[in-house]
Order: sequence, then structure tokens, then C-alpha cells
Amino acid sequence: MNTVSDKKDGLEPYKGKFITFEGIEGVGKTTQLNLLADYLKNKHIPILVTREPGGTALGNEIRALLLSNQYQNMSYMTEILMMFAARAQHLTEIIYPALRAGTYVLCDRFTDSTYAYQGAGRGLDTAIIQQLEQLVQKTFRPNYTIILDAPPHVGLDRAKQRGHLDRIEQEKLDFFERVRQAYVDRANQLPEQYCVIDATQSIDVIHHNIIKTICL
Amino acid sequence: MNTVSDKKDGLEPYKGKFITFEGIEGVGKTTQLNLLADYLKNKHIPILVTREPGGTALGNEIRALLLSNQYQNMSYMTEILMMFAARAQHLTEIIYPALRAGTYVLCDRFTDSTYAYQGAGRGLDTAIIQQLEQLVQKTFRPNYTIILDAPPHVGLDRAKQRGHLDRIEQEKLDFFERVRQAYVDRANQLPEQYCVIDATQSIDVIHHNIIKTICL
Repeated sequence: MNTVSDKKDGLEPYKGKFITFEGIEGVGKTTQLNLLADYLKNKHIPILVTREPGGTALGNEIRALLLSNQYQNMSYMTEILMMFAARAQHLTEIIYPALRAGTYVLCDRFTDSTYAYQGAGRGLDTAIIQQLEQLVQKTFRPNYTIILDAPPHVGLDRAKQRGHLDRIEQEKLDFFERVRQAYVDRANQLPEQYCVIDATQSIDVIHHNIIKTICL
Repeated sequence: MNTVSDKKDGLEPYKGKFITFEGIEGVGKTTQLNLLADYLKNKHIPILVTREPGGTALGNEIRALLLSNQYQNMSYMTEILMMFAARAQHLTEIIYPALRAGTYVLCDRFTDSTYAYQGAGRGLDTAIIQQLEQLVQKTFRPNYTIILDAPPHVGLDRAKQRGHLDRIEQEKLDFFERVRQAYVDRANQLPEQYCVIDATQSIDVIHHNIIKTICL
């Protein structure tokens, strides 16, 4: 049990950088994350690629429950508590130790997804998300958050081409409009952390925008 | 999704009664719960028997993760968020609807277990548990909480006779001393809700004590 490090977690300055990728389904988060990972590897910067919900053995079990089509009656409160349970494990087991060691951690989705999907998307009171964020992360936030922005129909068309839609992807188009707007609103409030990139551009142009943002 | 009832949940007066059974492993909670269930059935009172963590299909999946010996590095924060995630689902899907319908709900463990095990047992800050209790349950509390009290070695000897110990049962004896004390302390603070019964007495004597407590 991680009793000792729990006390300091989220409060210390870290040697590594925490970079998160956000946006609705199908905007190219995974592609861009992998391109940045390759770029950093070529510069001999130690990197770790991970994702949410998940990132640990336990977190992947929680992810499977969250995305399963079997639990259509999952309450909003249950969903958000499971999200933060997976996140707490991810931080303690993977993210904090990597950042302490000076690694750059690239994460596909993080707490901004919770604000965008559960908050703006489903209408869960933002104060509840803030309360859980404070409980689990204390003052810990990403160094950079890349928001890949595109109209919902563009992303969803791409996501559908991959096949079967999971429980969250089955939401209606106006749901994803609210999610998209929430991302942009959060970015406007804290421009030094967030970078909104037009995801309808070519993969290569987007990649170069991301490199410029992270300014190595 | 339970959007409408979510707003009222935990705040309304219910027709049924919510009765929880608490105590360390092996003190006879399940036996006594079943005896009370039979007693109420004979009086033609509608009853529902359930347990925590669990009580729903999703909750049982979460229970399996919590009790698995596979996740020895589960952080305290992860554990408590998963407990409350299962609880939120249990309340919305099972407990509140049953209480609304006038059913007596008999539950094997509830939030007192969280205070006793995660709080007193593992040393998690009680303020965190209070915060999550308020978030998930609002003002909702059991009508009666039966605490079956016995020295830890008595209960653990019985639990061991059942076979394999799960992750939580493997804790040391002083852990269970703290858990036992926490139950008694909580009962002393709110005697109108709690009833502490000496679980070293015979099954029949304990059963009659419980019936007297519930004063039908």
C-alpha cells in the first residue's frame, strides 16, 4: 500500500512534464500522441505513453466497466466516482513516479474529459467534479493540454468507421457539441496550460503545431 | 440514466426502513440478517436483503476488484472511491426504489464499514469519508444499524474456518481492534440509530436482541 508517497502526491514539483491530449472521438488524439512520442524519443527524452480511463491493470478493469454496453442504468455519480478511482490509481502507481524520475508522460485523456463529458455533456454539477479533482489530485494539473478541435460530425464519422460504438460514443450529436464547447471554454480560461488546435488540418500540420506548443 | 430521481435521492422521507448490519469478519452478520429477514417475512412485511460492497450487477463487479488479491498496490483513495461508486449505484438502482415502495431493506455492511475499515483500520482521513458520504448520500442514513461486537480473534477464527482469506481479511489483528473500536465509538455518538450487541452470545439470544431493537 502506498501510504508514504500518498501524502506528498500531487504537491511536489516534478522533474518530468505531464502532457494530456483531449478532444471528442475521432479527432486524432492517439495518432498525434504517438507522433509526439516518436519525436521526443528521437530527442532522447524519456517518455511514457498512457491513457484514461485506464493506465493500470486495475484502471483497465474499471475502464471496461465504464465503456461496457451492459450497464445502461449506471448513475452519473457512479460513473464519475469510477473515473476518479481509476485516476487515483493511475496517478499513484504510474504518473507521479514517472514524473519524479524526469519522464515526459503523454496521456490520452485526463480530468478535462471528465469536465467535458460528465460535466458539460451529461449535465453533472461542475462543483462535484471540482470537489473530486481537489480530493484526488490536490493541486496537480497537466503542464500542457493539447485540445484537438473539430465539429462533432467529423470526429464521429471517423469513430464510426472503426466499428462498434461504445456506451459513451452512442450519445447524440448535441451532446458532443456541448463537450466540444466545454473544452474550448476551459482552454480560454487558462491559455498557458491549454492549446486548441484545428483538427481538420493535415496530420503533419497538427503535429508541428503541437511541437511548437510544447517548445522544447 | 437515472437523471430525474437523482435529484431527490437521499432527501425524501421513505415509507420503508433501512436496517444495516455491521461488525468485523465472522461475528455472524449474515446469519442474523437472514433470521431477521425470516421474522419480517412471517409478519408479512415486504423485505429486500442486500449487501455491500455490491448489491447490483455493476456493484458486484466492483466488489470483485476490491476483494481480489491481485491488486495489492491499490491506493487508499482508489479503494474508497470504488466503495462509494458501488454504493451510489446500489442506492439509486436498488435501495431508494425499495424504500419508496415501503420495503424493509436489510443490508450486510454500509457506510459504517467505510468509516471502520478505511478510516480507523487503514488510517484514511475521516474528513475524506465524510465528504464522499455527503456527496453520495446527502442526508440519507440507516434507520437502524445493528453492530455485532466480539473480540477480533473470535471473529477471525470463524472467518478462517470458512477457508481462503480475501485481501481485506488478511490484515493483522490490531487492524481489526481499531475497526471494532470505531464501530463502538460511532454507536456511542448516535444511540438512537445504533445498537451494539454482544456477538459472543448464542444465535438465538442475539436474534431476540435485534428484534427488540427494531421494536416493530
